[in-house]
Amino acid sequence: MRDLRKKAFKLVEPSSSRKDPNFAFDSLIIILILFNVLAIILESVPEFYESHAPLFFWFEIFSVIIFTFEYLMRLWTIVEKPGFEDPLRGRIKWVFRPIALIDLFAILPFYLPFVGVDLRFLRIFRTLRIIRIFKIARYTTAFDLIKRVFNEKKEEILISVLFIFVLLIVVSTLVYYAEKDAQPEVFGTIPRALWWGVITLSTVGYGDAIPITTLGKVLGGIISLLGIGLFALPTGILASGFSEEIGKRKQKDF
Amino acid sequence: MRDLRKKAFKLVEPSSSRKDPNFAFDSLIIILILFNVLAIILESVPEFYESHAPLFFWFEIFSVIIFTFEYLMRLWTIVEKPGFEDPLRGRIKWVFRPIALIDLFAILPFYLPFVGVDLRFLRIFRTLRIIRIFKIARYTTAFDLIKRVFNEKKEEILISVLFIFVLLIVVSTLVYYAEKDAQPEVFGTIPRALWWGVITLSTVGYGDAIPITTLGKVLGGIISLLGIGLFALPTGILASGFSEEIGKRKQKDF
Amino acid sequence: MRDLRKKAFKLVEPSSSRKDPNFAFDSLIIILILFNVLAIILESVPEFYESHAPLFFWFEIFSVIIFTFEYLMRLWTIVEKPGFEDPLRGRIKWVFRPIALIDLFAILPFYLPFVGVDLRFLRIFRTLRIIRIFKIARYTTAFDLIKRVFNEKKEEILISVLFIFVLLIVVSTLVYYAEKDAQPEVFGTIPRALWWGVITLSTVGYGDAIPITTLGKVLGGIISLLGIGLFALPTGILASGFSEEIGKRKQKDF
Amino acid sequence: MRDLRKKAFKLVEPSSSRKDPNFAFDSLIIILILFNVLAIILESVPEFYESHAPLFFWFEIFSVIIFTFEYLMRLWTIVEKPGFEDPLRGRIKWVFRPIALIDLFAILPFYLPFVGVDLRFLRIFRTLRIIRIFKIARYTTAFDLIKRVFNEKKEEILISVLFIFVLLIVVSTLVYYAEKDAQPEVFGTIPRALWWGVITLSTVGYGDAIPITTLGKVLGGIISLLGIGLFALPTGILASGFSEEIGKRKQKDF
Repeated sequence: MRDLRKKAFKLVEPSSSRKDPNFAFDSLIIILILFNVLAIILESVPEFYESHAPLFFWFEIFSVIIFTFEYLMRLWTIVEKPGFEDPLRGRIKWVFRPIALIDLFAILPFYLPFVGVDLRFLRIFRTLRIIRIFKIARYTTAFDLIKRVFNEKKEEILISVLFIFVLLIVVSTLVYYAEKDAQPEVFGTIPRALWWGVITLSTVGYGDAIPITTLGKVLGGIISLLGIGLFALPTGILASGFSEEIGKRKQKDF
Repeated sequence: MRDLRKKAFKLVEPSSSRKDPNFAFDSLIIILILFNVLAIILESVPEFYESHAPLFFWFEIFSVIIFTFEYLMRLWTIVEKPGFEDPLRGRIKWVFRPIALIDLFAILPFYLPFVGVDLRFLRIFRTLRIIRIFKIARYTTAFDLIKRVFNEKKEEILISVLFIFVLLIVVSTLVYYAEKDAQPEVFGTIPRALWWGVITLSTVGYGDAIPITTLGKVLGGIISLLGIGLFALPTGILASGFSEEIGKRKQKDF
Repeated sequence: MRDLRKKAFKLVEPSSSRKDPNFAFDSLIIILILFNVLAIILESVPEFYESHAPLFFWFEIFSVIIFTFEYLMRLWTIVEKPGFEDPLRGRIKWVFRPIALIDLFAILPFYLPFVGVDLRFLRIFRTLRIIRIFKIARYTTAFDLIKRVFNEKKEEILISVLFIFVLLIVVSTLVYYAEKDAQPEVFGTIPRALWWGVITLSTVGYGDAIPITTLGKVLGGIISLLGIGLFALPTGILASGFSEEIGKRKQKDF
Repeated sequence: MRDLRKKAFKLVEPSSSRKDPNFAFDSLIIILILFNVLAIILESVPEFYESHAPLFFWFEIFSVIIFTFEYLMRLWTIVEKPGFEDPLRGRIKWVFRPIALIDLFAILPFYLPFVGVDLRFLRIFRTLRIIRIFKIARYTTAFDLIKRVFNEKKEEILISVLFIFVLLIVVSTLVYYAEKDAQPEVFGTIPRALWWGVITLSTVGYGDAIPITTLGKVLGGIISLLGIGLFALPTGILASGFSEEIGKRKQKDF
């Protein structure tokens, strides 16, 4: 039994080698998740759903069986993982990890109606499971590199976010004062002006909120052009981060 | 008294260590500023303001008391700072520094009605106080790095801004000539064409001003694609700036 | 005959020297392709087509003759190329290469009507032939550099694409749930929400789909600002890639 | 006379030292150009022009006198410049240089009405003179750096432009086929589809042309996301270019 659990653990827990059986297991689960996401997308189109209802039904049954089996296997074998050795507390600790909660919420909506609870809004977690696609990415060295760059540069990135945040608050409030009387329905409150600010600073520019007063236009023009700098700052930070990490790796090679 | 003032000065003046008591003091003031900004945002929503009017009133009283206390403390202790030693001139010099003016204007609107002056538009300075959030950023090494990169590259950034400025003027004037007869209400004056130019060059593209003549579209297309280069130039400059600064730091370490 | 074929092969097959006769041959073919693309563009304008119909007709005849001649020459000489030596299998292998298929489909629509088949939609391949412009780019060292950077960084680029993909799916599904009741015609299905997601994340922001609920706007604002990071990631990767490749080249020079 | 001409030449011809008298001369001319550009912008606003007509008139007279004087001085002294020694041919050679033509066209519209010719559209060249602002930029080392980076990387930039060009042609033609029947007024000809393509690829996204067919939306989504890569490529090139140039400069210093 112990031995079987050890083997099962090795199967469900990712390693970093593509030759291990868990690479195949991970791939299969992720392919199933991708098909689930595709099913969710297609289900939302009425004309498509109506003509394929039974297909969606049986695919749902099939998916939930596999995912339940996978979830129970992980719950059973997790005690093999260092730090989760305690049969009860280790398992509870695992159950409340975000990724395990997403997995649980993804299968729960199927079972709950049987016990009389309607938590169908939990079905949204079926989409969130797509995050597990990065498990596959973990097999690449590139994912590791990107993670390390973000880790190394997290302070700089945070400060960039702070810049954006302050700029947004200040400019949106100023534009609110400039436009609130001219366009009360679009700039009538600061939250509305913030919506305009975000859409302008990110250079999305839907066109649902456009300043019309001279002061509003001047401020809007400034924030639009500052949007350029906003792209430049994190990009410059990441670019130097990548160069740095690659430099480090090379030094190791020597 | 002197000793007390010295201690008080150390409290209100930021150092670069997170262990000093002023880190806690700064954090508290900034948290209060953040809540003030939140209050300003929520106050602007009529349905929210009306149902929580007393809360906003008492929070305002509380904030102004704290901020006034902080302002007076700074005014009292600033003479401890090198360059501000003169009891009168040092204090006047400090009062007219932009950050101190913002702090003053942020509390003034509360007191002025008592003396019969209505300067409620000064309340906008309460939002500007959010800039003080960068005081906290100063405790990170990243903020220092970003500041040094901008300082080192300010000439290059200025020339990028010059490029944008010249491009805007030239293209907007040309589009003004191309579109003024076809769309007099949108491109009828050069300032209006400049508004179009800014919104297009920054790739915001609201859609309130769109060239319709062939010449206008050709010029608009060119400026749109040049907008890409516009992002590339400052980004490339900053990226190399970050790499350079990090390189310098490493050399120091050896 | 063999000798002639060898010479003809050298003519149609690009080398990397600008002095070879095939550089002139390539240039001529590409100029003809460019004129063809121009013709396709102008043909689509009714007022222009009607007044120049004979010109378009004779230019088409002329182009097809040249392109047919070029295609047959390549088909004849390809056996000179290593790996295509077998007179039959080598030629079949070549015919099914994408670039050869595009060349074939580009001339086919002209001949098929004679044998009673109407495949005029194949004319679109005449435009695709513009890809052959990169044959000229191959004579530059820059093209080679860019290709190597993309090759070196393909794992990182793939992971960036994966990030975009996951972000798109997750945010679009969430916004679908937030907006589907408020705007069924715009956000009524997940594919429609995905269209919104792509247009917002890429910061294009047409304005045909705009969230109006509070939750939708918050999610929209987040995805807009994340759009900035989205530009930063691949740019940082490419920037470090270029620095790396240039560094390698320099080391070779020593 | 010779001596005077030599001195005059030194005055009007820029050097790279900020201490020379020509720095002051250049600055004055550029300040006058900037005021001229401001005048052109304000003149286009009817309500402003009407109330300040005499001011604009006398400022025009004053500017033209100065610019004419400057032009004649350059014409007179240019023979001092190496390569322009011949009194006639050197001067003709100089007159036809683009920057000299712009200067000529900027003053010509004032004189021509006297001889009965109306070339008022030449007034647009008064705006183009703003390009001379880069004469001042020439005094900075940053301008030189940027110029050298663009020079060094011109092949890579050209290939990026080629990518954009090919992508635009191919995608716009495909979207033209997808949308021409559904929206003949917006996508009815390839030039119109190209307008959509430019506005989408540059992520401006006005919203005047939006694909509505499924195929059109899929193609539009792809080109929008590729727009990101489009920003990444030239940015990465420039970033590595700046790092390289700075590296070279350092090596010189040793």
